[in-house]
Amino acid sequence: MGDVNEFKDFAKAMVDYVGNYLENIRDRRVLPTVEPGYLRPLIPETAPDTPDTWQEVMSDIERVIMPGVTHWHSPKFHAYFPTANSYPAIVADILSDSIACIGFTWIASPACTELEVVMLDWLGKMLDLPKEFLACSGGKGGGVIQGTASEATLVALLGAKAKTMQRVKEAHPDWKDSDIIANLVGYCSDQAHSSVERAGLLGGVTIRGLPADDSYKLRGDALEAAIEEDLKKGKIPFYVVATLGTTNCCAFDCLEEIGQVCRQKDVWLHVDAAYAGSAFICPENRYLMKGVELADSFNFNPHKWMLVTFDCSAMWLKDPSWVVNAFNVDPLYLKHDQQGSAPDYRHWQIPLGRRFRSLKLWFVLRLLGVKYLQEYIRKQISLAKEFEQLVRSDDRFEVIYEVLMGLVCFRLKGPNEINEKLLKRINGNGKIHLVPSKIRDVYFLRMAVCSRYSESSDMIYSWNEIKTLTEELLKEEKEKA
Amino acid sequence: MGDVNEFKDFAKAMVDYVGNYLENIRDRRVLPTVEPGYLRPLIPETAPDTPDTWQEVMSDIERVIMPGVTHWHSPKFHAYFPTANSYPAIVADILSDSIACIGFTWIASPACTELEVVMLDWLGKMLDLPKEFLACSGGKGGGVIQGTASEATLVALLGAKAKTMQRVKEAHPDWKDSDIIANLVGYCSDQAHSSVERAGLLGGVTIRGLPADDSYKLRGDALEAAIEEDLKKGKIPFYVVATLGTTNCCAFDCLEEIGQVCRQKDVWLHVDAAYAGSAFICPENRYLMKGVELADSFNFNPHKWMLVTFDCSAMWLKDPSWVVNAFNVDPLYLKHDQQGSAPDYRHWQIPLGRRFRSLKLWFVLRLLGVKYLQEYIRKQISLAKEFEQLVRSDDRFEVIYEVLMGLVCFRLKGPNEINEKLLKRINGNGKIHLVPSKIRDVYFLRMAVCSRYSESSDMIYSWNEIKTLTEELLKEEKEKA
Repeated sequence: MGDVNEFKDFAKAMVDYVGNYLENIRDRRVLPTVEPGYLRPLIPETAPDTPDTWQEVMSDIERVIMPGVTHWHSPKFHAYFPTANSYPAIVADILSDSIACIGFTWIASPACTELEVVMLDWLGKMLDLPKEFLACSGGKGGGVIQGTASEATLVALLGAKAKTMQRVKEAHPDWKDSDIIANLVGYCSDQAHSSVERAGLLGGVTIRGLPADDSYKLRGDALEAAIEEDLKKGKIPFYVVATLGTTNCCAFDCLEEIGQVCRQKDVWLHVDAAYAGSAFICPENRYLMKGVELADSFNFNPHKWMLVTFDCSAMWLKDPSWVVNAFNVDPLYLKHDQQGSAPDYRHWQIPLGRRFRSLKLWFVLRLLGVKYLQEYIRKQISLAKEFEQLVRSDDRFEVIYEVLMGLVCFRLKGPNEINEKLLKRINGNGKIHLVPSKIRDVYFLRMAVCSRYSESSDMIYSWNEIKTLTEELLKEEKEKA
Repeated sequence: MGDVNEFKDFAKAMVDYVGNYLENIRDRRVLPTVEPGYLRPLIPETAPDTPDTWQEVMSDIERVIMPGVTHWHSPKFHAYFPTANSYPAIVADILSDSIACIGFTWIASPACTELEVVMLDWLGKMLDLPKEFLACSGGKGGGVIQGTASEATLVALLGAKAKTMQRVKEAHPDWKDSDIIANLVGYCSDQAHSSVERAGLLGGVTIRGLPADDSYKLRGDALEAAIEEDLKKGKIPFYVVATLGTTNCCAFDCLEEIGQVCRQKDVWLHVDAAYAGSAFICPENRYLMKGVELADSFNFNPHKWMLVTFDCSAMWLKDPSWVVNAFNVDPLYLKHDQQGSAPDYRHWQIPLGRRFRSLKLWFVLRLLGVKYLQEYIRKQISLAKEFEQLVRSDDRFEVIYEVLMGLVCFRLKGPNEINEKLLKRINGNGKIHLVPSKIRDVYFLRMAVCSRYSESSDMIYSWNEIKTLTEELLKEEKEKA
């Protein structure tokens, strides 16, 4: 299919297909019923020598792909956290895929770098980030699009490592690199995402998970005590990740307390607001990011909750030079005359290549507008609160954490086992999809509002499904007893 | 723009726009004339509160974006290596963006994982990779889509590191991790891509660039000597990257020799065939990958030369468990009942999230077919050879490396400075775009055949542009003298 007219026909048929798929997604079973290995027998063992027609490919979507799709954009999908999807972002990607430049240097496509710089300023202003993070302030700071929050955590860790290595080596020129690295310690809450531990594994440094308080927040005093303890042992504290909106229960670490400790101890503070960061476009939520001016780097995922399709993880750094210098290996074929007058984003990230992802941000922000996005966030939070009320109205259940964003954590009163059974039954029935979590040996269910199609009636639907299956389960348990 | 009918109108207008853009790309100036900072004044300082119309966005593409685009798909673009683009891949991404699942576990969308497993088998068979790399062989091996070759190099390095750490710790339970890591040494040719050095920086281990031979290939004896030397010093050789098709001049390391040394010394061998790997779909090129059965991991980028849009970097591992175990941090919310019966690809890569990228492979392989892709590669190689003949026909020039793939390395006979001046003039004129390279103090120009629109007449056009500017330059130099 090299012909442009065939492309136009096929692409337009696909546009109709996906529009209809999304508008009717509510009618599909959210979880597939297939077993592992289902797909291989449905297609040939090798690629065809001569081309199939696009109509054949089109008809295979319902036959081969859809039976194995978990429908993340169904209002019946409540697992993990949302991943974003919107019409403007899909159209932007058509353009991005067609320009198909690799934006590793400014000259490799100036528009790709420059739109990203300005879009991260637009976005930073929407969150009211301190101006030290914005390129338009004329200082060192600026933003970049990473693929995922995991990568942002790793990039910040590597910047913090480079900065600390330099400081320590200036003070102790005789110390060996390997000894310094072996003594570096980073910190996060024991509620932080698994990607923080993983960043430590990848970067070859120790990360300590510190006990969060009774509200699952990391506090300044716990951090300070850990740092003091490590300093006494001759360790070198170098990096702290504060989470705003944990994956387990959407808890917010006490950023201001943590930030003050980091300032005092000269430790790099990275803020991971992957999910909840989108909510800071609403001024009423910004109390939860108080202290952000004390951070060195800040990250959230518009591809989670701000309707920009994956991947688009926004990261800001007050001083990107630590990251740039950590990564800088500059062969001749990547040098160009304008070096230094615009960021060469390849130095800000793990991979070398990068897509023209800022187009998605530009299209979404322009075609939806800030007010719409604010109302979208507010509506999703209010739907979670509606669901919370439904749970609270039933004495058999308990809500186990305050509902601040679009996540409700709840459980059947009683042992973990009954909750495990309930979840298995819910996902087995496949009408709605939830995942569990566990904090301090308490197992619970997470109901995240994930879909841009979610309405009040969906909260009632999901609650009724849970209630029905609970009743079935409790009846059976009673009969067994 | 939340309305589906508006989406359909906008998306179809965009399909028409990009079809026309690509079909007429030859008429655009390949390099933009903008200066750094050009874009910011063209758009507002903040995101709009209320939405713009899609027609406004559409008309801003030519006003704001296109003036700053380097047209990678123009047949006048000869810089770097190609990045792929094709109509089937663009349509596949519309579907991928709409399903918009995050394929971090099997259950998160079984189709996303399973199509990837089978597509990597299809692709591996097209290259005639040894069956130990293929999932369909029923062994441990299998393939995965990474974002970039840089990530594949890093992932393999981390697997090699984990494997070696375990072996060394079993033999020396009293050795400290930090001491072992400080002694690990990886190897590559001094012609290897900068991302290998970078992978060493990221993974916190030493990578030695070894001298390639006079044909810029890494040989077995050079590797063996380096390993012997390091073993005598008490170092721990753990990782070798062999490059098939270097970025500088498309040289091929002697894989078979290197592989035998790696086997003998029990060192992980990773093959980076980022660009040239696509050529192995043609049997006549496979002599260049002789010895691949000795490798532990193999990587090439269909997003470079096989018409699958970025990002799609195909990687195979004979034993993925070393990588999986190095990365495995498994929180409850990511556990599922089918664990173990299908790969959970999040353990195979640096980020946690991942798009449904195998759709692009499926669409491209089905809608173009293997024969078309083989002919495509053959045609691009023959175009490079045509260009080579044009250069050779002019006594003022020399071709400095054999032309095996789609890259011609050439220079004006004489000092580097005159070649630097020539390149500046070529890119300044902006009709065609090339980048330089330098090996052992010899500066030269690289002409890569990059576009799927490239024809014989484009080779003549580009050569005439170079010749015209050479004549201008030589005349001016003579006048100055």
